[in-house]
Amino acid sequence: MSAQESNTAATEQKQEVAELATQVEDIVLDAEGKPLSKKALKKLEKEREKEQKRIEREAREAAERAAREASEVDCAKENYGKAPINMSQVQSGTKWTEIKDLSAELAGQTVHVQARVQGSRPTGSKMCFLVLREGSATAQGLLVVDNETISKQMVKFANSESLVSLVAKVVVPSEPIKSCTVGDVELHVSRLFVISQVAVTLPFSIDSASWSTLDYERDPTLNRVLLHTRLNNRVVDLRTTANNAIFKLQAAVSQLFREYLTNEKFTEIHTPKIISAASEGGANVFRVDYFKRNAFLAQSPQLFKQMCIAADFGKVYEIAPVFRAENSQTHRHLTEYVGLDLECAFREHYHEVMNMIGDMFIYIFKNLEKRWAFELATVRKQYPSEPILVGDKPLKLEFKDAVALLRKHGEEMEDFGDFTTKLEKTLGRLVREEYGTDFYMVDKFPLAVRPFYTMPDPENPMYSNSYDFFLRGEEIMSGAQRIHDAGMLRERIAACGVPVDDLIEYIKAFEYGCPPHAGGGVGLERVVMFYLGLDDIRYSSLFPRDPTRLEP
Amino acid sequence: MSAQESNTAATEQKQEVAELATQVEDIVLDAEGKPLSKKALKKLEKEREKEQKRIEREAREAAERAAREASEVDCAKENYGKAPINMSQVQSGTKWTEIKDLSAELAGQTVHVQARVQGSRPTGSKMCFLVLREGSATAQGLLVVDNETISKQMVKFANSESLVSLVAKVVVPSEPIKSCTVGDVELHVSRLFVISQVAVTLPFSIDSASWSTLDYERDPTLNRVLLHTRLNNRVVDLRTTANNAIFKLQAAVSQLFREYLTNEKFTEIHTPKIISAASEGGANVFRVDYFKRNAFLAQSPQLFKQMCIAADFGKVYEIAPVFRAENSQTHRHLTEYVGLDLECAFREHYHEVMNMIGDMFIYIFKNLEKRWAFELATVRKQYPSEPILVGDKPLKLEFKDAVALLRKHGEEMEDFGDFTTKLEKTLGRLVREEYGTDFYMVDKFPLAVRPFYTMPDPENPMYSNSYDFFLRGEEIMSGAQRIHDAGMLRERIAACGVPVDDLIEYIKAFEYGCPPHAGGGVGLERVVMFYLGLDDIRYSSLFPRDPTRLEP
Repeated sequence: MSAQESNTAATEQKQEVAELATQVEDIVLDAEGKPLSKKALKKLEKEREKEQKRIEREAREAAERAAREASEVDCAKENYGKAPINMSQVQSGTKWTEIKDLSAELAGQTVHVQARVQGSRPTGSKMCFLVLREGSATAQGLLVVDNETISKQMVKFANSESLVSLVAKVVVPSEPIKSCTVGDVELHVSRLFVISQVAVTLPFSIDSASWSTLDYERDPTLNRVLLHTRLNNRVVDLRTTANNAIFKLQAAVSQLFREYLTNEKFTEIHTPKIISAASEGGANVFRVDYFKRNAFLAQSPQLFKQMCIAADFGKVYEIAPVFRAENSQTHRHLTEYVGLDLECAFREHYHEVMNMIGDMFIYIFKNLEKRWAFELATVRKQYPSEPILVGDKPLKLEFKDAVALLRKHGEEMEDFGDFTTKLEKTLGRLVREEYGTDFYMVDKFPLAVRPFYTMPDPENPMYSNSYDFFLRGEEIMSGAQRIHDAGMLRERIAACGVPVDDLIEYIKAFEYGCPPHAGGGVGLERVVMFYLGLDDIRYSSLFPRDPTRLEP
Repeated sequence: MSAQESNTAATEQKQEVAELATQVEDIVLDAEGKPLSKKALKKLEKEREKEQKRIEREAREAAERAAREASEVDCAKENYGKAPINMSQVQSGTKWTEIKDLSAELAGQTVHVQARVQGSRPTGSKMCFLVLREGSATAQGLLVVDNETISKQMVKFANSESLVSLVAKVVVPSEPIKSCTVGDVELHVSRLFVISQVAVTLPFSIDSASWSTLDYERDPTLNRVLLHTRLNNRVVDLRTTANNAIFKLQAAVSQLFREYLTNEKFTEIHTPKIISAASEGGANVFRVDYFKRNAFLAQSPQLFKQMCIAADFGKVYEIAPVFRAENSQTHRHLTEYVGLDLECAFREHYHEVMNMIGDMFIYIFKNLEKRWAFELATVRKQYPSEPILVGDKPLKLEFKDAVALLRKHGEEMEDFGDFTTKLEKTLGRLVREEYGTDFYMVDKFPLAVRPFYTMPDPENPMYSNSYDFFLRGEEIMSGAQRIHDAGMLRERIAACGVPVDDLIEYIKAFEYGCPPHAGGGVGLERVVMFYLGLDDIRYSSLFPRDPTRLEP
């Protein structure tokens, strides 16, 4: 283990200790909600001191070693080192090869590669293996001292997470390399220059941030990198191949959403996020200073996308941030997330829209498995999960039948209440057992648990023309037929006790005539989280925001 | 002219008068900046009273007429009327035809159509022509009294901007219809039901909101619908075929931007809009109440997209709102707009990225003309403009050469200053004359006029590796190579006098090592505005936000 690496490992442990201490001070983050005892605090303090001493000792030893080595003669001086800062000084026309494109077809060729040194493992004093990483792909590099072009000093040069430019020969190893995504070749390095050096001690190594739950089960002494630590150092954390893949998959969900809707002749819209009134009820809304006036951040594009329908846009969708000032610190709430919203005029029945949305999700799920198989496999290596169970058509249940199913299995529930999170999960399990699917729609929710703009059921006014979509027992989308008649809307606004003054512009849209329409809103991070079976929504948000987190 | 129509026309005039009055009170909106005289105010007041009287008289007359007609016998009672509110009562399986799909191929067939009645023109007492509109498409409808299925009352029934469901026979007229987008057939209506009635007087007719500048030149007495009036009644205004097409084109620009970048292996990202510090300089930033703390709205995804590059995402783009608290009321500034942002790691030289962006724009422009020809023609009918001049490769000028070109034509300019808006426009004209293109890139801006994170030119530190892209003499994108070295970044932050404390998380990203990279940001509304030659950015924003406008 190099000085750099042991340093990193020490820092990780120190980090964990410091984090525990932070959690003690920060009751919000304490899962149990109980402050630690004085004795426990003292113990923590002692551990911290011990760690500090170890770090100092190791740093001293590393410095001594470096001084010793600097005095030795180096035959490979020209073949490695720190490159000058790239200010676009040259355009050499060099052909660069990406790690993911390495294969046995290139065997024997010399390639130019730019990559991170994820880790280095010296074997004796004459050899060093490198793990080279580019995006989600990794390959093995090898430096062998020949006392001509490669020296002992060169072998020790490359440090963790530095970005290097290298020249290497592509060689087929005697055995396939299991620890890298590129298994059939390795790179025998002849020149190695650092493009960008890691100037500070890493908060944790990418290796340790990449351990899976299976690794922890196999070796319980492994130091787990906690979510809190990951998010505090998100730029380093995002470099794991799993994270790289998670955000490729997040992009894939949006891409497939758009692909499907573009094909269905939807128009993409962009509605304002700064609005004049807290129009969707007033609670949980962020206030903004707007040129000496009050303004608010939109909690959804709901009112505006409906106004686009009144403006005869027919079918619209939007992908944009939505803001919820909800002071709850749960595994599935964010204060800012990405909304995939759609709204669609229909001819006769809102099921035209609801069925289309169901088909859209199935299109998304099927294509993820087909076209993003590498990324899914990469995520599942670190966060094991089964692909979801889903057929070619979505299952549709009525709310009252879902209630009956729950009651049949001993759950208690009101006729016209809403599902709790616990009931939702139970329903997910029961539906899976009964119908063999992880994805389903529940139709005809009680009117009382839906927003004022929801169209009542024409047959039973206790219910409404509204639906939720569920994935693995958690809600990923909520939608409904909306009220398109200004008179009926005014009545419902009054019945729900919503202040009508904030909604004048919205109501006006319907007074000018509006086609019947339905739609829904999806939380992008939720779809990714539940699809991948992640256990916190922060894993699927690039830089998550919650009531206590505003950085980085 | 029906009562409804004359009512509408009267209201329009009243609206104009009221608007003038508003402008008098509202000095911000007064282009000249001078308050009107007392005499002018009195004159306005008188005009308003006169209008009011006329409106009242006309409404009285209309009511009398309606009472007279209600007492007559109606043979067609079953064939027209107001449909019940659609609560998804039925699923009839009816096949519906869209207006845009009507053609001579359907001649003789009976079709079911849902559309707006844009206008009705009675000819004598037995016939009535309708303009039926669906999205950007219009067709002619015809009602002829036969005293069997169609009565006099039915002919007078359909009012302006109501949404109707109708049954009609497709007929090829003796002459092509020039006033509608569907010219080769018309619809002979046999049944007509109102799905959604216009419950109030329209602020202006869609016809008058659709007049082009050429119409005004031909007939100077036409009442122009002012931008202010349009935006106050945006839902009605957006129904014009030109507006419908403008927002299809806006969506097309994003679609083509994504198409190109997805093909180039970019990953779409979503960065937070609520941030902890006013990190890009401090001025012009909106403050947000965030759980008893201060937070701010992101002025761009700049820092976060660069952090994604440090996190090895390689190539990223984002389409999202950006917020600028700039208190300037100009034709090309909004306080909230849609940013098309991209950032890209490169191997050797930032021109790799700059040239790619240039090619991307040409891809966007060429495909707009090819794939959205109908929408472009629709917009150009109301807002006449020439397609832009552009070759297969973008023109690249160095800043100093652009300065030389301006000076050659008598303009004054500093060596290391920035272009004023006026100079930009002059440059656009000169480049068009000299090089025959409306689209070009200016490279190597002076370092002093660019943000702190801009990479200096390695050959002359007075310049920088930065660029702007111009369309018809107006800037549509700004970008640069960014500083990826933490040490150099700290120096530039200090040199620019930016508070370093707000940038700690950002600088940290580079301390962990970061590849060289470049990128840029595009304002979506600006691209659409300049591409279509619109004279105010508010025309290309769905619900524009400026210092005085927060509604609708």
